[in-house]
Amino acid sequence: MAGTIAVIPGDGIGPEVIESARTVLDALDRRYGLDLAYETFDWSCRRYTETGAMMPADGLETLARFDAILLGAVGWPGVPDHVSLWGLLIPIRRVFRQFVNLRPIRVFDGVGSPLRTAGPGAVDLVVVRENVEGEYSEIGGRLNRGFPDEFAVQESVFTRAGVSRIADYAFELARGRRGYVTSATKSNGIVHTLPFWDEIVAERAERFPDVRWDQEHIDALAAKFVLQPERFDVVVASNLFGDILSDLAAAVAGSIGIAPSANIDPTGTHPSMFEPVHGSAPDIAGRGLANPVGALWSCVLMLERLGHEKVAAELMTAITTTLRSPETRTPDVGGSADTADVTAAVAALVAG
Amino acid sequence: MAGTIAVIPGDGIGPEVIESARTVLDALDRRYGLDLAYETFDWSCRRYTETGAMMPADGLETLARFDAILLGAVGWPGVPDHVSLWGLLIPIRRVFRQFVNLRPIRVFDGVGSPLRTAGPGAVDLVVVRENVEGEYSEIGGRLNRGFPDEFAVQESVFTRAGVSRIADYAFELARGRRGYVTSATKSNGIVHTLPFWDEIVAERAERFPDVRWDQEHIDALAAKFVLQPERFDVVVASNLFGDILSDLAAAVAGSIGIAPSANIDPTGTHPSMFEPVHGSAPDIAGRGLANPVGALWSCVLMLERLGHEKVAAELMTAITTTLRSPETRTPDVGGSADTADVTAAVAALVAG
Ligand SMILES: CC(C)[C@H](C(=O)O)[C@@H](O)C(=O)O
Ligand SMILES: CC(C)[C@H](C(=O)O)[C@@H](O)C(=O)O
Repeated sequence: MAGTIAVIPGDGIGPEVIESARTVLDALDRRYGLDLAYETFDWSCRRYTETGAMMPADGLETLARFDAILLGAVGWPGVPDHVSLWGLLIPIRRVFRQFVNLRPIRVFDGVGSPLRTAGPGAVDLVVVRENVEGEYSEIGGRLNRGFPDEFAVQESVFTRAGVSRIADYAFELARGRRGYVTSATKSNGIVHTLPFWDEIVAERAERFPDVRWDQEHIDALAAKFVLQPERFDVVVASNLFGDILSDLAAAVAGSIGIAPSANIDPTGTHPSMFEPVHGSAPDIAGRGLANPVGALWSCVLMLERLGHEKVAAELMTAITTTLRSPETRTPDVGGSADTADVTAAVAALVAG
Repeated sequence: MAGTIAVIPGDGIGPEVIESARTVLDALDRRYGLDLAYETFDWSCRRYTETGAMMPADGLETLARFDAILLGAVGWPGVPDHVSLWGLLIPIRRVFRQFVNLRPIRVFDGVGSPLRTAGPGAVDLVVVRENVEGEYSEIGGRLNRGFPDEFAVQESVFTRAGVSRIADYAFELARGRRGYVTSATKSNGIVHTLPFWDEIVAERAERFPDVRWDQEHIDALAAKFVLQPERFDVVVASNLFGDILSDLAAAVAGSIGIAPSANIDPTGTHPSMFEPVHGSAPDIAGRGLANPVGALWSCVLMLERLGHEKVAAELMTAITTTLRSPETRTPDVGGSADTADVTAAVAALVAG
């Protein structure tokens, strides 16, 4: 079961955490003979500054030949978001129909949650975020630019196909977990798209009679993520709501630095992309302070997706173990280690 | 400085917390001679069930004659949101051009924040929510209903006038506080309306050179509300983002039960409306368990708006004092009191 992986380290701490990921993946490969092959691409804001484009014109065609994409982080001060994100990250998600953005969150032993009541193991949830439609649409614009009566409009678009498949994914996933799905909505205020979302989620739920489910308005749900995070198992949400909830849940679990994500095309037609939730963090870039756990946990998700479930579990255990001790945790989670220390500790554990 | 107040107790715990508010307002009136006059309206889901409408056809004309509106809560199981909310609450906000939704949040002595680090006084912020446009628009609909290619669209609408006035309100408010405004955005993902929001906020900021300001994407901002809530002073946000952030902040402060809100028309052309953030809470309705603090704090905002600043401050002190002791706090904030106990304690304090 070989696998080819396109690696895009990107900007800021991206290359630092990707180096960590590569070191650990190599250790796993030596031990388990995963036979993974890598090609690295310098697509980034740096490349944009030098050449005028985040990636070459045939970038997506190039990526399409790989089994998976591993991304560090993109974004740099001075490069506008519509360049760095809409010139790389978002086209990858959309063109490769990665309609699931999977974001697991846990409170680990050693990583204190900022919540008094959330001890280790107390929070263990997955946000299943719709990743290709919804509120992030390119449809919209402005009228009367610069005049007092100027206005901007933006269309949210929800399709029956899009909502059905993300709901199905969430219900399926819950079957292998605690069997409980919460659907994020705001159909009391947003009266066209979200009642439609609610209706379709309810319809799909009927196919999963063994899964318990309910829905919550996003305002109340955000509050419950703080007041009773242990309640949740799988949370299915639109593009925007999933974005908000997953960052919020990562904070509740103690650090954005440990949160992973997988952008998945469940049909397997296109490569899926794995990236830590944290960004390029210009403030700490180049200082060896980056927490590599977000990237390493993203590798767990990648290994699972490539069919290496056992190796993935091994890596997850190693991550959990290193988080327990301050000597093998970075400062953002109350430790004294640098990126290299954490990497060495995880690599040593998985080397057996 | 007399004042006429339209009182709409509404559903569930609405009438219970409004009774508390009236008792306390009467005590204040006896002491300070506020000369307030009330008229109570039975507009509610109960009324809808009996008559087919939440309020009479001339309901808004009736309300227009008052100086302020005090609302408990509306909503009841079985009555759809488009009836209970869009038949009462939302028309009041919109027709009376209450474009500011003001939501102060504090961690009080006695009310434990669920956050380990947030001691009393640590969090003291105000969410200034845009209240009449943005993501809650009625523009949109569905195509191909019931067919596989069905989809729904919904238009967000942001106007230059609308964004300018809410930004101005936030900057003004910050002047009387710690002089710091945070603007909630998501212009990296929502590429038409929110870059427009950012641009206008930046333009208006220039008129307030004495106020420090920055902007944060809503995902990162939600995380920071949990990780560093003490950082924030005034947070200005669109209709949807303000809704989410204010519930989240209330949870961070320990309970939705204490959070107040004011729906304000700053021009004074129309009456403003004051309502606790909590809903009708059918699960605890009629059991005397409702926390009246959300309603009482809303009365503080109402008294300020009616020009009774000193009396408002007096009431706020009384609320703060009663929250300190478990005997005069409700169970949702770790106390043993019922609604009537809290009411009696606050009323006794303000009676002097
Ligand atoms: C009930 C609902 C439409 C309302 C809103 O989102 O405006 C409520 O959540 C609020 O915050 O007052
Ligand atoms: C950078 C931004 C457009 C992106 C998103 O909102 O999708 C990021 O926040 C994420 O969650 O991956």
